[in-house]
Amino acid sequence: MQLGMIGLGRMGANIVRRIVKDGHTAVGYSRHEDQIKEFTDELGDSFQGATDYPAFVALLEKPRVIWVMIPAGATGAVIDRIAELLEPGDIIIDGGNSRYHEDIERAKALAPKGIHYLDIGTSGGVWGLDRGYCLMIGGEAEQVAHLEPLFQSIAPGVDAAERTPGRTGEPSPAEQGYLHCGPAGAGHFVKMVHNGIEYGAMAAYAEGLNILHKANIGKELDDAHSAEVSPLENPEYYQFDIDVPEVTEVWRRGSVVASWLLDLTAAALHADPDLTSFGGRVSDSGEGRWTIHAAIDEGVPAPVLSTALYERFSSRGEALYADKVLSAMRKAFGGHNELPGT
Amino acid sequence: MQLGMIGLGRMGANIVRRIVKDGHTAVGYSRHEDQIKEFTDELGDSFQGATDYPAFVALLEKPRVIWVMIPAGATGAVIDRIAELLEPGDIIIDGGNSRYHEDIERAKALAPKGIHYLDIGTSGGVWGLDRGYCLMIGGEAEQVAHLEPLFQSIAPGVDAAERTPGRTGEPSPAEQGYLHCGPAGAGHFVKMVHNGIEYGAMAAYAEGLNILHKANIGKELDDAHSAEVSPLENPEYYQFDIDVPEVTEVWRRGSVVASWLLDLTAAALHADPDLTSFGGRVSDSGEGRWTIHAAIDEGVPAPVLSTALYERFSSRGEALYADKVLSAMRKAFGGHNELPGT
Amino acid sequence: MQLGMIGLGRMGANIVRRIVKDGHTAVGYSRHEDQIKEFTDELGDSFQGATDYPAFVALLEKPRVIWVMIPAGATGAVIDRIAELLEPGDIIIDGGNSRYHEDIERAKALAPKGIHYLDIGTSGGVWGLDRGYCLMIGGEAEQVAHLEPLFQSIAPGVDAAERTPGRTGEPSPAEQGYLHCGPAGAGHFVKMVHNGIEYGAMAAYAEGLNILHKANIGKELDDAHSAEVSPLENPEYYQFDIDVPEVTEVWRRGSVVASWLLDLTAAALHADPDLTSFGGRVSDSGEGRWTIHAAIDEGVPAPVLSTALYERFSSRGEALYADKVLSAMRKAFGGHNELPGT
Amino acid sequence: MQLGMIGLGRMGANIVRRIVKDGHTAVGYSRHEDQIKEFTDELGDSFQGATDYPAFVALLEKPRVIWVMIPAGATGAVIDRIAELLEPGDIIIDGGNSRYHEDIERAKALAPKGIHYLDIGTSGGVWGLDRGYCLMIGGEAEQVAHLEPLFQSIAPGVDAAERTPGRTGEPSPAEQGYLHCGPAGAGHFVKMVHNGIEYGAMAAYAEGLNILHKANIGKELDDAHSAEVSPLENPEYYQFDIDVPEVTEVWRRGSVVASWLLDLTAAALHADPDLTSFGGRVSDSGEGRWTIHAAIDEGVPAPVLSTALYERFSSRGEALYADKVLSAMRKAFGGHNELPGT
Repeated sequence: MQLGMIGLGRMGANIVRRIVKDGHTAVGYSRHEDQIKEFTDELGDSFQGATDYPAFVALLEKPRVIWVMIPAGATGAVIDRIAELLEPGDIIIDGGNSRYHEDIERAKALAPKGIHYLDIGTSGGVWGLDRGYCLMIGGEAEQVAHLEPLFQSIAPGVDAAERTPGRTGEPSPAEQGYLHCGPAGAGHFVKMVHNGIEYGAMAAYAEGLNILHKANIGKELDDAHSAEVSPLENPEYYQFDIDVPEVTEVWRRGSVVASWLLDLTAAALHADPDLTSFGGRVSDSGEGRWTIHAAIDEGVPAPVLSTALYERFSSRGEALYADKVLSAMRKAFGGHNELPGT
Repeated sequence: MQLGMIGLGRMGANIVRRIVKDGHTAVGYSRHEDQIKEFTDELGDSFQGATDYPAFVALLEKPRVIWVMIPAGATGAVIDRIAELLEPGDIIIDGGNSRYHEDIERAKALAPKGIHYLDIGTSGGVWGLDRGYCLMIGGEAEQVAHLEPLFQSIAPGVDAAERTPGRTGEPSPAEQGYLHCGPAGAGHFVKMVHNGIEYGAMAAYAEGLNILHKANIGKELDDAHSAEVSPLENPEYYQFDIDVPEVTEVWRRGSVVASWLLDLTAAALHADPDLTSFGGRVSDSGEGRWTIHAAIDEGVPAPVLSTALYERFSSRGEALYADKVLSAMRKAFGGHNELPGT
Repeated sequence: MQLGMIGLGRMGANIVRRIVKDGHTAVGYSRHEDQIKEFTDELGDSFQGATDYPAFVALLEKPRVIWVMIPAGATGAVIDRIAELLEPGDIIIDGGNSRYHEDIERAKALAPKGIHYLDIGTSGGVWGLDRGYCLMIGGEAEQVAHLEPLFQSIAPGVDAAERTPGRTGEPSPAEQGYLHCGPAGAGHFVKMVHNGIEYGAMAAYAEGLNILHKANIGKELDDAHSAEVSPLENPEYYQFDIDVPEVTEVWRRGSVVASWLLDLTAAALHADPDLTSFGGRVSDSGEGRWTIHAAIDEGVPAPVLSTALYERFSSRGEALYADKVLSAMRKAFGGHNELPGT
Repeated sequence: MQLGMIGLGRMGANIVRRIVKDGHTAVGYSRHEDQIKEFTDELGDSFQGATDYPAFVALLEKPRVIWVMIPAGATGAVIDRIAELLEPGDIIIDGGNSRYHEDIERAKALAPKGIHYLDIGTSGGVWGLDRGYCLMIGGEAEQVAHLEPLFQSIAPGVDAAERTPGRTGEPSPAEQGYLHCGPAGAGHFVKMVHNGIEYGAMAAYAEGLNILHKANIGKELDDAHSAEVSPLENPEYYQFDIDVPEVTEVWRRGSVVASWLLDLTAAALHADPDLTSFGGRVSDSGEGRWTIHAAIDEGVPAPVLSTALYERFSSRGEALYADKVLSAMRKAFGGHNELPGT
């Protein structure tokens, strides 16, 4: 099959590479002539490129299949522009990180023109070229079925993991790494929750490793104890110098917390055992936030996922005013002065 | 009645002042001759002082009543020392912030000598001299009854708040501001939970005020948005310059969140509207921690109280290693670089 | 002054009563002839009523002041309807619990017609008639100033609480119990956060009292301990039968956690010491949810407020599916069977 | 090498099977003659058994190596008993789930007798026979080194996972699945935190799947909306019927949240898509609780891990009293009645 790709950044480029490797062809759009040339050099006949939308659209076979893989903030405008050039039966895919609300609106807006719209949540990060991408797809069943050959090339395939006990016969799409999750928006909805879970799982590891990291706190001289500070009651229980990088390594085999995130953590800690290359200001993107919005709209408790998000906010200093309020209260009722900073 | 007081710091001194004002007498112990003199000057015949324990004990009428009001870390040794000088029927009170476990052990250790032990959780902070102290008492009923005249002088009295609807006739001890909570340890147990609640309530205000404080975030220029940062979706909803000090003032009257903590917060914000005198490193003392220990031992969920405690830990930088782990993970799976610090 | 009131439910009716008591007059709208008659009987000449909007509007002096005090879901339609009958210079007040987003939209929609719009968050619950209502006001300064005589009658007044140290001279509006918080939406924004704080503070008490309530868990026979259940390590520390109603009473005087919420809790526990009239399914309304939305939009950590909200969701069984997933996981990796239910 | 095993339950039995398969021999203790016979039949000459301790000890070559694999509550007494029969140089291993505090005490108590003590946290659950067990080891370096041949047979081995980038040459012990974490207690300390992380990660999945499960909430008729209940603002965004079992399957390949826990969850949901075999009462064992104790002692924030633990408490109804308090408060300030139960 042929796929049109708008956005030849890391993710878009690697998706193109995966399908071309599997015998499909690709048409790429980029404003930069150079970038087009690079891809043509790399991929040969399997790739054509264009630096303006009409030329790009003209290179596509009908029904056209256009995957938009650009930052969420810019996606809407690009889809609006490209839709003007399309015909009934064509398919637009948003493979980025749009909020699923927008997918629902966009599908509705494109339907009268006969243009189909799929939202595909894509997980795999910088590793997707080799491992394949996990695809969570929203849209109409007919178009999803039509594009399965592409999805099979982009997704990891059934061999990427042992089959789940009880699953036999022809592997289902989910087993191959792509899933039609429901109508427009369902793909990004599932991807959103995926990222919410990711935040929670990451925080679980991070908190636990912090506890290991501080397991030697009983060795510190405790000269400073006063009415203001609670002295450690049992310093003899906190005398461990735990080698956190080695612990993450040992957990990779046989333990209940083995995971791909742990694999990555072990690699990061092997490369930089004291994490000196990091300052501890943790970013967050929309999905973690939207997951909490959804939980609250649904009336479903999500304290772990929320707390994980808030820890990121706090890592960036966003609790400071609240902390000052607490210190002001303590001063007011108890005459407590703040401890000097470190 | 006569009360012996070991520890003439702010709390101990003010308890002495309250009972003397009500016609009782006090004997104070201090290592510092000067401090004794000060009190004698201030309180006249109602106060006697001593700078060693035997002299202190000799000044007390039998059965002796000795209130120990010193930092928790030092309490045990002082009680051991003083107990050697006492006789059956005498009463030791720990009015400080001991862990209630210790009360249980101490009462057990003193019982064979016929010495009675009361643990009294004392709330009121720097305001207790005027407002009276809320007393949460653990120990034997007979001794609690014997000391009621003192408790009535130390506690705020029924007039300190409107009577609870349905409570009529002779005010109960709880209505006067002191309560026999149960056997040894019960007083400090109730005080411990009191402080746990205090942490949670303080955090509720602090978080809420932080949300008000940032209500103008939509006014900030959002040049920096990229794939790494989620842009604010609706900046038009965050254009408010809320006067936080005035908000805390207006809530003091008629609102559901009116409280003494809010009164103090309003006062602190009136005096220092931008909280410039605080750095935001919030201390915690044992009670907040022990409350969580108790919740977990009991199998009772306490996520609000725990989270409030953890916010204090975080305010002191104790999440840093965990945050670095998160940044390392993000770099590893997504190639995300940390945002530059502020 | 004269005030028009749409919605003569508990809140609307009591606001009318408060202003009439202070010498103002009121015009009420109700679909029910009977309700109008009741108010006329009670309030005499100070009250006029109408059962249709045109008649209601006709009874109002210009510039008309119309307070809408109805459930949030119905407010928009009523304001649209009433706005058709108004003239430039008239003022509409939404005193209910609308989301502040709607205030911003409404003020914008009404502005071209010259109709002014105020959003007033109103706290005080069933007690407002006697205590007065705390008013958090959004809108244009000129209209807020114009209506101050009404606000002064509705709000509690400066005498409702001791003045904050440092505040002297003529009491500010905040000290009287009403505050102009900012432009349209600011009133409901502040009220929203107020309720968010309320949830957090309530949860702090509820969690703490639960810990007191279970303080006797060490008395239970522990026959059931097995590899599946962690036995209590120190049953001797959990032998207390705490009288929770009395504890809430004693905390009302002199303690750091004294508050109006505590006053109410003490009253509720005095009336029903075992809370037998409650099943434990806790409702939530929009404000608690919107507070979290705002915190996340602002990037401000609010774990205590969020957790408090989630506890309410959980109290209504909304964690059930998640809990089943946990049990399924435990079964899968450890062969653990669920404990039998109670 | 030869290993003595006390406790032939699932874990102990499978450890025996793994070492025998690798050419080691085992001596088992069981009170039940039948159980011994079963193992002798299964394992032939490689296994000897005894039904009393002296006979068991007599079968062991010196220095004896005795692994105790029984419920934590019983471990202490068994170790005390067995230690009486041992000689200097012998080694006792606690492979169960003891609190690490006890390890520190036990090692200290056994040292004067010249008996060595290792604490080994063992992860792998019911899957360990095939996958191998992850071993976290505390104790003296010499004994750990001596026992490496056994650890290599019990642990999964380096091939159980791809090697971490940057790790080359002879695989380290951690890469083979066992790690000497530090002196006595360090093994159980690391295992404790491992389980704490496990709770957090499990909760992350469970909360996320709950959000997916409720994604169709907008389809419900919303007849019940009133002032007491917040109606769903955007029902059009919650119209998805997500196939949760298929989602867990698709995430297994290529996604960031792929993990062994997810593998098991996918299997459990494939076998029982509606989780009808579970009631949702989630057990917890000591490690999750002790992890929080450690975090608090260290002053390290662990809100995700704590919240995960509390969700389990709540799943067993332990929030009920707190929830009733909340309902009582709502009734008191707002006159709100509880919603009827389901």
